[in-house]
Amino acid sequence: MYTFDTTLSSAVSTGDGRQAAPGPLDPETLDRMLRYWHAANYLTVAQIYLQENPLLREPLRAEHVKPRLLGHWGTSPGLSLIYTHLNRLISERDADVIYLAGPGHGGPALVGHAYLEGTYSEVYPEVSQDVAGLRLLCRRFSTPGGIPSHVSVQTPGSVHEGGELGYVLSHAFGAAFDNPDLIVAAVVGDGEAESGPLAGAWRGTAFLNPARDGAVLPILHLNGYKISGPTVLGRETDDNLRAFLQGNGYEALFVEGDDPARVHQAFAAALDISHNRIRAIQEAARDHGLFERPRWPAIVLRTPKGWTGPKEVDGRPAEGTFRSHQVPMTDTRTNPAHLAQLEEWLRSYRPEELFDNNGRLIPELAGLAPRGTRRISANPHANGGSILVDLDLPDFRDYAVEVDPKQPAVIRQESTRRLGMMLRDIYTRNAEQANFRLFCPDETNSNRLGNVFEVENRCFVGPTLDIDDHLSPDGRVMEVLSEHLCEGWLEGYTLTGRHGIFATYEAFAMVSASMTVQHTKWLQEAMNLPWRAPVASLNILLTSTCWRNDHNGFSHQGPGLIDVMLSKRGTVTRIYLPPDANCLLSVADHCLRSRNYVNLIVQDKQPQLQFLDMDQAIEHCDRGASIWHRASNDDGGDPDVVLGCAGDISTQETVAAAWFLRQIAPDLRVRVVNVVDLMRLFPAGHHPHGTTPDEFVELFTADKPVIFAFHGYQRAIHEIVHGQPDVDRIHVRGFNEQGTTTTPFQMTVLNEMSRFHLAAEAIRRTPHLGDRAAGLLAECEARIAAANAYAHEHFEDQPEIRDWVWTD
Amino acid sequence: MYTFDTTLSSAVSTGDGRQAAPGPLDPETLDRMLRYWHAANYLTVAQIYLQENPLLREPLRAEHVKPRLLGHWGTSPGLSLIYTHLNRLISERDADVIYLAGPGHGGPALVGHAYLEGTYSEVYPEVSQDVAGLRLLCRRFSTPGGIPSHVSVQTPGSVHEGGELGYVLSHAFGAAFDNPDLIVAAVVGDGEAESGPLAGAWRGTAFLNPARDGAVLPILHLNGYKISGPTVLGRETDDNLRAFLQGNGYEALFVEGDDPARVHQAFAAALDISHNRIRAIQEAARDHGLFERPRWPAIVLRTPKGWTGPKEVDGRPAEGTFRSHQVPMTDTRTNPAHLAQLEEWLRSYRPEELFDNNGRLIPELAGLAPRGTRRISANPHANGGSILVDLDLPDFRDYAVEVDPKQPAVIRQESTRRLGMMLRDIYTRNAEQANFRLFCPDETNSNRLGNVFEVENRCFVGPTLDIDDHLSPDGRVMEVLSEHLCEGWLEGYTLTGRHGIFATYEAFAMVSASMTVQHTKWLQEAMNLPWRAPVASLNILLTSTCWRNDHNGFSHQGPGLIDVMLSKRGTVTRIYLPPDANCLLSVADHCLRSRNYVNLIVQDKQPQLQFLDMDQAIEHCDRGASIWHRASNDDGGDPDVVLGCAGDISTQETVAAAWFLRQIAPDLRVRVVNVVDLMRLFPAGHHPHGTTPDEFVELFTADKPVIFAFHGYQRAIHEIVHGQPDVDRIHVRGFNEQGTTTTPFQMTVLNEMSRFHLAAEAIRRTPHLGDRAAGLLAECEARIAAANAYAHEHFEDQPEIRDWVWTD
Repeated sequence: MYTFDTTLSSAVSTGDGRQAAPGPLDPETLDRMLRYWHAANYLTVAQIYLQENPLLREPLRAEHVKPRLLGHWGTSPGLSLIYTHLNRLISERDADVIYLAGPGHGGPALVGHAYLEGTYSEVYPEVSQDVAGLRLLCRRFSTPGGIPSHVSVQTPGSVHEGGELGYVLSHAFGAAFDNPDLIVAAVVGDGEAESGPLAGAWRGTAFLNPARDGAVLPILHLNGYKISGPTVLGRETDDNLRAFLQGNGYEALFVEGDDPARVHQAFAAALDISHNRIRAIQEAARDHGLFERPRWPAIVLRTPKGWTGPKEVDGRPAEGTFRSHQVPMTDTRTNPAHLAQLEEWLRSYRPEELFDNNGRLIPELAGLAPRGTRRISANPHANGGSILVDLDLPDFRDYAVEVDPKQPAVIRQESTRRLGMMLRDIYTRNAEQANFRLFCPDETNSNRLGNVFEVENRCFVGPTLDIDDHLSPDGRVMEVLSEHLCEGWLEGYTLTGRHGIFATYEAFAMVSASMTVQHTKWLQEAMNLPWRAPVASLNILLTSTCWRNDHNGFSHQGPGLIDVMLSKRGTVTRIYLPPDANCLLSVADHCLRSRNYVNLIVQDKQPQLQFLDMDQAIEHCDRGASIWHRASNDDGGDPDVVLGCAGDISTQETVAAAWFLRQIAPDLRVRVVNVVDLMRLFPAGHHPHGTTPDEFVELFTADKPVIFAFHGYQRAIHEIVHGQPDVDRIHVRGFNEQGTTTTPFQMTVLNEMSRFHLAAEAIRRTPHLGDRAAGLLAECEARIAAANAYAHEHFEDQPEIRDWVWTD
Repeated sequence: MYTFDTTLSSAVSTGDGRQAAPGPLDPETLDRMLRYWHAANYLTVAQIYLQENPLLREPLRAEHVKPRLLGHWGTSPGLSLIYTHLNRLISERDADVIYLAGPGHGGPALVGHAYLEGTYSEVYPEVSQDVAGLRLLCRRFSTPGGIPSHVSVQTPGSVHEGGELGYVLSHAFGAAFDNPDLIVAAVVGDGEAESGPLAGAWRGTAFLNPARDGAVLPILHLNGYKISGPTVLGRETDDNLRAFLQGNGYEALFVEGDDPARVHQAFAAALDISHNRIRAIQEAARDHGLFERPRWPAIVLRTPKGWTGPKEVDGRPAEGTFRSHQVPMTDTRTNPAHLAQLEEWLRSYRPEELFDNNGRLIPELAGLAPRGTRRISANPHANGGSILVDLDLPDFRDYAVEVDPKQPAVIRQESTRRLGMMLRDIYTRNAEQANFRLFCPDETNSNRLGNVFEVENRCFVGPTLDIDDHLSPDGRVMEVLSEHLCEGWLEGYTLTGRHGIFATYEAFAMVSASMTVQHTKWLQEAMNLPWRAPVASLNILLTSTCWRNDHNGFSHQGPGLIDVMLSKRGTVTRIYLPPDANCLLSVADHCLRSRNYVNLIVQDKQPQLQFLDMDQAIEHCDRGASIWHRASNDDGGDPDVVLGCAGDISTQETVAAAWFLRQIAPDLRVRVVNVVDLMRLFPAGHHPHGTTPDEFVELFTADKPVIFAFHGYQRAIHEIVHGQPDVDRIHVRGFNEQGTTTTPFQMTVLNEMSRFHLAAEAIRRTPHLGDRAAGLLAECEARIAAANAYAHEHFEDQPEIRDWVWTD
């Protein structure tokens, strides 16, 4: 059924004919590798099907089969073939290799290999190298309390969960950056290859420097089908595949066929060629310098889906078709013919010749696996926390904005610029250990982090021009107009034991939101595995925020990632909204030291009022939320109303609202509470940073109205505070999905979060103002009307609003 | 500064030398087109800079310049060049063309053209074809109360907002499907081309059938820079670009240069060749049948960024560099030298020769624009609602599951299979008008919608094999393993006046969540424009949900899109959680008839209990939420506790919890309330579907405890119900980010939403049970423990739980 096309590299192709399998493997090695592969395939089928009798030491009976069959066979034999050959490469050449399985639903294949090479039993001693261990291996797979069906956090040697498809290449490049000796074998499924994030990730070649980075070896595994339809690339001609890969910076090596011996020989040849090519590229660049972008090898592997599985099931083709995607026969407990077919299939691998009487892989085969930390499943790069080197961080206090505590909110500065200075010095101090990178969709300058360019360049491996600005193949500032690549590279970089930050326009963080979610899931699971050492947190700076994307308009205005992250487990999610530069510095220092979190830091890049001096900022960030006495006039006593706020513009408007209320209603006792750690608003039982009822009351009183100005979508606050005392009294103003290209203040007016709207809400919620309320509300409305009229006439904000500083 | 490489098609290249500009344009036409282009460029600069003196009838003074300069110059001249040439193509060949601007920040260019061809004044009469109108055109751009800086909903002729980058090609293919005579010119920016969704969208060629679909003409516009760094494709060699495009199914035509006359000639030639090629491909397929995938033309256009703008600003290169990205000189009001440079720049286009004394484009140039609905800005395909043909819908009652109202929750069926039958007949009834498609990432069968294959095939334009299942280039079931493509194609399809549904695994709807958000923003704005006719809603079926992805594990379990959509404006967002098949049918019928919404329908694909007969379902869906008396035992009176639910599994567990409570505490009066329209829980003031306090009390009582089982992340309910009476009493159980590969019931146990957890919560919240509570809680805990033990031992759920039907 499979056709063998001619290929680019005839040395590698299995060819059209059926001559003796030519290739670099001597017959004995070939035979041993085939049997090792059989062992892996056997374990794959056993994991999917068996709950007893794991080595078929007795005839297979219905009750040996699990009642629910959950797993994916189709991609597994291909994944195992690749694994077996990477083992040879490692053993023969002492190569340092990790393996990322894009078609991660082939979980049992990777688990099987980890078991065959012993790591699995080291990590999970109960899954021992004997029949009892084999039985448990099978029983754990895809069962309650066991392990997931996909390549997952629980799989030793994995830094890539293959559930949500599309990220294997971005993870691979992230892992390869600054790991000069590492080879990252990245298997790309032909289904996954249809996804946008994967399609964009081929371009990592423009950012991979052979002189200082490791190599990514993509292996495009074409088995032709997805769940039910054909794959686009699986039906592509070799010519077009070659052109596509060439256009992305690769030279394609084709391996095709369904005859195991021939494919093994061809794949061995392709891997040898690839490795030689990789080393030649690296040596040339390291010895003589980098003169042009290299053309990296990439292997295209065409093998049948469900290869070596049942050819037909109930008279319909199975091997080589979509019907092999998951479980080829599902009713083996009730259908004796299918049970017999399963037994035949399992026995076709001759398990009795692979495992000894104790259930242990025979030494002849066990010897094929690499040793110690060279085993793919034990490679320390795939347990990045184990080789994590702390960042050498400067003292963040050195970048403080000077604020006179008696005169806060007078000077304006771009807060993120201070962070840029700090990042600059992080680059310098860690230049030697080369374990820090900033990732950003071409907005480093725009986001006011440009001080990094005093010491570090943008990375680009390709031709540079005189007019370019800080561009070099040696650069470690990673700018690419793809949130998917930024996020994926950073994930790969941190999971292999390094540090970084992803700075992006707030609205477009939603582009990669699903990746952030999946990374959160990874960390949530990793925390439960003692053998996985903690990795550096995934730090995301959301800047160019909704409130100050007045210049770009509605599409650029969306604080939605906050909502997405609120529902993830509190053990790993953190959201910080620093109101000014000094708080940002304190928060950033904390986040860069933290482990195993996803930290969102939300702050705009435009000049903003500076509220706290460094000591105050540290204390405030330490508390996460505190009363700002200087902005309050309740004299430490009981207020009439509390103005809460979280976010920079929200804080500015809140402080201005309190100031405005002092002008028009000086007897109204107003308390201002600022929240920098959003998780503080959760009840203590729900999030480790949450507040107890007493703490909550201390901040917000037990029963006074709270007007809360929130940076994000306003109703999200109600999701957070549920369970705190008397939450009905909390009235939130926030981003309300109103926006366009306009002025900064008009953004707060459109969303009814301006100082005057907040003041009006406070007045409305303070019953004892009595008859005076109407007049005060009219005053607020007049101010809003005046601001609107001015902006519509002059195309900018009223000077008294635009230039407002706090001077009372 | 610009180098002219040799190109594939030498007929099109401007060549290396500087001979007289060869090409298809006679000198007079060339001259007129150049001047038309000048007019567009002039209007672009004027919109960005001027608030007065729009035609420079007097010397430029500082006060003529806007105080805030917001807009993007860099890409605009290239966009205008393309527009001018498409106009020629349309006029000469009566072509039917729409224009999608990927680099949509070039908004003023597209607005300028719409103005030049008169549409703008027809749509916005106040922006008249005279000096006053020109002044208003400038003053509206990027100002409060005006129009956004990007190509936007407000731009006539646009179906693509260019804010969040990456979707121009998927929108283009969506627009071309089933529009045989339409040519969709899709300009791809070289920045945008780095994004994953764009990179994946080139593959639309594998789904575009020249016999029945229109054409997409990609124009890859390389101007070399993003905001500050170079673009990856802008630095690519022609060879690699050609290979890349070939690998994606295109033949590349190169146009390069910075000499306007030469580039205009070359682009005219490229466009002629492209059009000839498109028509030849289509005619061949239409006359003789489709034998192989055609190779479609694609134009690569290399021109300087900010072309014809200032060469230098303050001694630094501007034209051709990233410094032209937005506003080349920003301080023109305060820097007289820059003001003079701006005036010189504006006058370089000779506005006095382009516009007459009344401010009207001179007839000689105005004649270049096409007429009537052939104008790009007036093409009805770009105002899809204006040509929308209603779907011929079958009676959804015909697909009803027979449910005995006296014996509900006894039969199990796959609810989505009923929808599949309905979709099948929608295909049949609308085959002639060809205006309906289902989009799905290769999961149509998996999602139990496979009945569509009785009448319709999967679409694939490429080689097919005997073993393929319902695959044909004529198919209209669009399966591709890319949520980005599914969503983008459907958006393009509906915005051009057709109908469809996107069915996807719930968790992976997050992959394209940002697109859903941006489409929502589009609809929100479109509703405010009377000239934009309503389009069919974007219908998203979220299936294979978290509760029943027990077989795929944690990565496949995530109901996050609900949270994302809750914050969008109520005018356009709808979320439905049908508990059974008949409700699904009723909801689907409603959604397919609706206009201008984003409808999320959330329902799993596995066999599920059927609760309501069709009449009950219709009434229930009509109400959106109602008391299920048959499941309650409060006899229409006051209950002790309310069990609320939204979602299929949530409903099953809730009904079972009520049943269980009747077994163990028959005197406890329990009311069951089911919510199918999630928006009903909002307060009436917040969402048009929201409930008044009275309605809310009628459902949930005024003060009784409510145990609410929610399909999604549990705290989201608190975001929704804030503002309803006494919400502190609402205790929600829902998806709590706990999952793995396990059994169905274990998923509810892990997330503490099982019937026994719900019953226990009801007991805990019902104080009058007194001493009995402890015993009842122990009973609940015992049931949970037994379920856990059974699942861990047998790898499946207890039969009494798995097979539970409601028989009391």
